[in-house]
Amino acid sequence: MKIRTGVTIPKNFIAGGTNCGIKANGGLDLAIIMSTVPSVAWGVFTKNRVVGAPVTVSKNRLRSKHISGIVINSGNSNTLTETGLFDANTMANAAANAVGEKLGRFLVASTGIIGQPLPIKSILQEMDNLANVLGPYGGKSAAKAIMTTDSVSKESSKRIKLGLSTVSVGGCAKGSGMIHPNMGTMLAFITTDAAIKKPVLKEIVKRVNQESFSRITVDGDTSTSDMLIIMANGASGAKTIEKPKGKLFGKLLEAVIEVAVNLAKMIVRDGEGATKFATVRVEDAVSEGDAKKASVAIAKSNLVKTALFGQDPNWGRILASAGYSGAKIDIRKATLKINGVIIYKKGKLASQDWEGKVASKMRLKEILIELNLGLGKSSWEIWTCDLSQDYIRINADYRT
Amino acid sequence: MKIRTGVTIPKNFIAGGTNCGIKANGGLDLAIIMSTVPSVAWGVFTKNRVVGAPVTVSKNRLRSKHISGIVINSGNSNTLTETGLFDANTMANAAANAVGEKLGRFLVASTGIIGQPLPIKSILQEMDNLANVLGPYGGKSAAKAIMTTDSVSKESSKRIKLGLSTVSVGGCAKGSGMIHPNMGTMLAFITTDAAIKKPVLKEIVKRVNQESFSRITVDGDTSTSDMLIIMANGASGAKTIEKPKGKLFGKLLEAVIEVAVNLAKMIVRDGEGATKFATVRVEDAVSEGDAKKASVAIAKSNLVKTALFGQDPNWGRILASAGYSGAKIDIRKATLKINGVIIYKKGKLASQDWEGKVASKMRLKEILIELNLGLGKSSWEIWTCDLSQDYIRINADYRT
Repeated sequence: MKIRTGVTIPKNFIAGGTNCGIKANGGLDLAIIMSTVPSVAWGVFTKNRVVGAPVTVSKNRLRSKHISGIVINSGNSNTLTETGLFDANTMANAAANAVGEKLGRFLVASTGIIGQPLPIKSILQEMDNLANVLGPYGGKSAAKAIMTTDSVSKESSKRIKLGLSTVSVGGCAKGSGMIHPNMGTMLAFITTDAAIKKPVLKEIVKRVNQESFSRITVDGDTSTSDMLIIMANGASGAKTIEKPKGKLFGKLLEAVIEVAVNLAKMIVRDGEGATKFATVRVEDAVSEGDAKKASVAIAKSNLVKTALFGQDPNWGRILASAGYSGAKIDIRKATLKINGVIIYKKGKLASQDWEGKVASKMRLKEILIELNLGLGKSSWEIWTCDLSQDYIRINADYRT
Repeated sequence: MKIRTGVTIPKNFIAGGTNCGIKANGGLDLAIIMSTVPSVAWGVFTKNRVVGAPVTVSKNRLRSKHISGIVINSGNSNTLTETGLFDANTMANAAANAVGEKLGRFLVASTGIIGQPLPIKSILQEMDNLANVLGPYGGKSAAKAIMTTDSVSKESSKRIKLGLSTVSVGGCAKGSGMIHPNMGTMLAFITTDAAIKKPVLKEIVKRVNQESFSRITVDGDTSTSDMLIIMANGASGAKTIEKPKGKLFGKLLEAVIEVAVNLAKMIVRDGEGATKFATVRVEDAVSEGDAKKASVAIAKSNLVKTALFGQDPNWGRILASAGYSGAKIDIRKATLKINGVIIYKKGKLASQDWEGKVASKMRLKEILIELNLGLGKSSWEIWTCDLSQDYIRINADYRT
């Protein structure tokens, strides 16, 4: 299809995906996302101490002034193998070579099974073909080529006015298991044709991650391979943003956050086996740390998540999770709402008929859990999904 | 059946269970465990900040010099209700009354659904009947009456020589969801006819809990109602243990630990939907704290647990969990074994045929995961179970 989507919406970004044989069914498994003009890039990576080789290599390469693009494969995470670092460097250099760019200007990412040697020969053999299919309409196939257990590809974009210029932000991401907020959680690539200095981009990456990918949990497992990379090439012709402050910076930041939040929520919606999308908002906590602790504990509780799957407004499990989170809580001050219905208010069940009121709301696909601790002024919000039998099926059989 | 089992094996302990109507199917749901001679008692309780009323009441009553017994109901946890504290005190006093004991000398425990008013009238009406069925053969029915989603009742006992006397230790416990090491996790009651001073008992409770119930995880959720209570009545005639040291103390401690470990492992084996029992042992960590962190992270990882269910030796998920646990890890020094088969050794997969060797071991019901970090001298061990579709079924439908 001749439409620019996701990462190829911003000017002078091209992308594409192909099959190099890692996915046995012929599905797309190798992608490049790149700028045809010099761009700056920055990223955040998994906080896991066991990391994939591409994480080490890309972190290292991000120190360069300019980055042209990133090459990504799915189906194999190039993690915990003996030749990992060599393979990751080889793959990144091959991509740079194939598009006629300086070595060292390409990042690399891999996602998929842990511990099997990367089929580097197949990847190298396919690289020229991949370079040939890159183009402004390749956003969609790049988004497809980075998928693993995802059931749909994930793209988002936003266009804004920055001064007199039109600036675009685009992105793609993949989930959908091993998602938990301890880092950049999963693969996400965001491009923009805004003109920004590298220190400004660093600040944007940090704040965007905090507002988006750091707020999602599917199964509480932090992956070894995940990263968020943002690239900016200035091709819009907009004025360069020199400092991480002011109106232009704020407007751009807001747009990038919007794209990232969309992608993050898509990942949760597509969580392995998920049938519900739930927002957990903890309010009036003593501190932001407490609000985070309580919201994360609720969002990752297997008991809360199975209750969501069962469409059961099991408020006791929600309060119990907040109770063991480490956050300060006094149930005589706590108020719990599900989809706007007050269930528990300051030590008491709200009314005799709360269960009738909430029953139909529990059947919705979107659930909003609001817990007001009544102790302070800090709040936090996390997005999660339910835990279903399909999650077990997907993950019990993953390697076979 | 006229056999002494579990808590009624030690001399002068009697117990019994009855139905007071909380379990609609007529199953046993109300129990008393007590000593017919003065006894001392101590316990540990959930660390959840949201606690059931019986936790508050029993903690308070444990300050008395003597405790005669404990009354327990299943099916309703008397947690997060308006009249909880009043009901819990009333229930404990009614039990004391029914057996002709001073008020204040009975503890109380409740387990089951959170947030529904305790049917205190039904409990009070049944109390005299319960007092009438108490006896030395009532250990089994008490063990049955404390069950919730448990599929089997859990009892254990041990007889030892302490000096010239024979001393017994007996216990019963219930699981099987909301199990995670942050406290006494679940209900467990242990009796002994050893003679010990209260400060000695306190030390025993602490050390027993650390070696048993603090080492199990089913779903990572810490309950609001759980407790471990140990009672000692001296009826064996053995010499009183005055200090928490020496040979007699050591022998008794070992016996109580053995009973508690048996009960703890029974809880994991009966974990909701569990098909496997897994021991996770982390060795040669930098510190005991690190060994704990890594073993807990592995044992509670949904990805590791679903892989166990799928009989998949997914060693990458095991190392990845250790990686995000916060424990120091260097994969070039780490060695991983499953049921004795070396899979990963110091940065490399062990051999070409490890998968063939481990495949048959993965079909066993007992799995031993040994991760040697090669960094220090500290170790820790945790017991867990797999995560199956049945866990979801049980917990999605729990309240209905």
